[in-house]
Amino acid sequence: MRELVGSPGTWGGLVLRAGQCSFAGASIGVMVSALGFANYTAFCYLIASMGLQLLWSFGLACLDIYALKMRKDLRNPILVSLFVVGDWVTAILSFAAACSASGVVVLFEKDVNFCKRVPGFPCGMFQLSTALAFLSWTLIAASSLVMFWLLASL
Amino acid sequence: MRELVGSPGTWGGLVLRAGQCSFAGASIGVMVSALGFANYTAFCYLIASMGLQLLWSFGLACLDIYALKMRKDLRNPILVSLFVVGDWVTAILSFAAACSASGVVVLFEKDVNFCKRVPGFPCGMFQLSTALAFLSWTLIAASSLVMFWLLASL
Repeated sequence: MRELVGSPGTWGGLVLRAGQCSFAGASIGVMVSALGFANYTAFCYLIASMGLQLLWSFGLACLDIYALKMRKDLRNPILVSLFVVGDWVTAILSFAAACSASGVVVLFEKDVNFCKRVPGFPCGMFQLSTALAFLSWTLIAASSLVMFWLLASL
Repeated sequence: MRELVGSPGTWGGLVLRAGQCSFAGASIGVMVSALGFANYTAFCYLIASMGLQLLWSFGLACLDIYALKMRKDLRNPILVSLFVVGDWVTAILSFAAACSASGVVVLFEKDVNFCKRVPGFPCGMFQLSTALAFLSWTLIAASSLVMFWLLASL
């Protein structure tokens, strides 16, 4: 079988998971430190979704490390099916959260001009957190595609 | 080769495409008839994205009808690759549009209470249009998964 970059239990997979974890964690950190984020449902949902992403990616990163240490092959159909479901669910949730947060950020920034009119409104932090969420999503999307491809070719 | 429900050039595929077209069209119609939608970037983006979705799905529906009439098999690798790329791009754009619109709708409805405070604000129409966009997306997501599976197993 061909070796796919980013498969579970490989160095590529571990790098992807680590990237997902760190971007999701950074997104949560920036959002939590922005004053008044809790007034907006979209930003609360972003935190919840990035939290789930963080837990899932961290779990799979640990599994990758274990597989690399023990030289185990994680590519059996049942395990890959489980990875596919989890990856796709977290990927869709993360993307939805990032998109709805960015919809609200654009509204604040462009449509109602909140960022200029309200002094001290942490627009920059909302933007940064949303951008980090999108970065985390691109990595989880890559993982999801690799997993789906793997499942289809197993 | 197994017959996948929703493959290009089959009745299942045609039904999926027709559903995508009609939901996307309905979403555009409802949004355009809501007063003041043009003030919000997220809603304009929803219309643009649903328009693209409508064009793409309509094109593929015509191709499906042609294939059904002429009894042609559309499942060759080059054609399926093209379908995969188009389906995935439109699916991601539609989902992003629906999510950002729903982020803004939830903000209006729940966070700033615009829907109750501003009389005549067409909240219901924004909601309906967003819901229709999500319905259109579920169908394009189904098509995308079928196409990707087909490509992986060709």
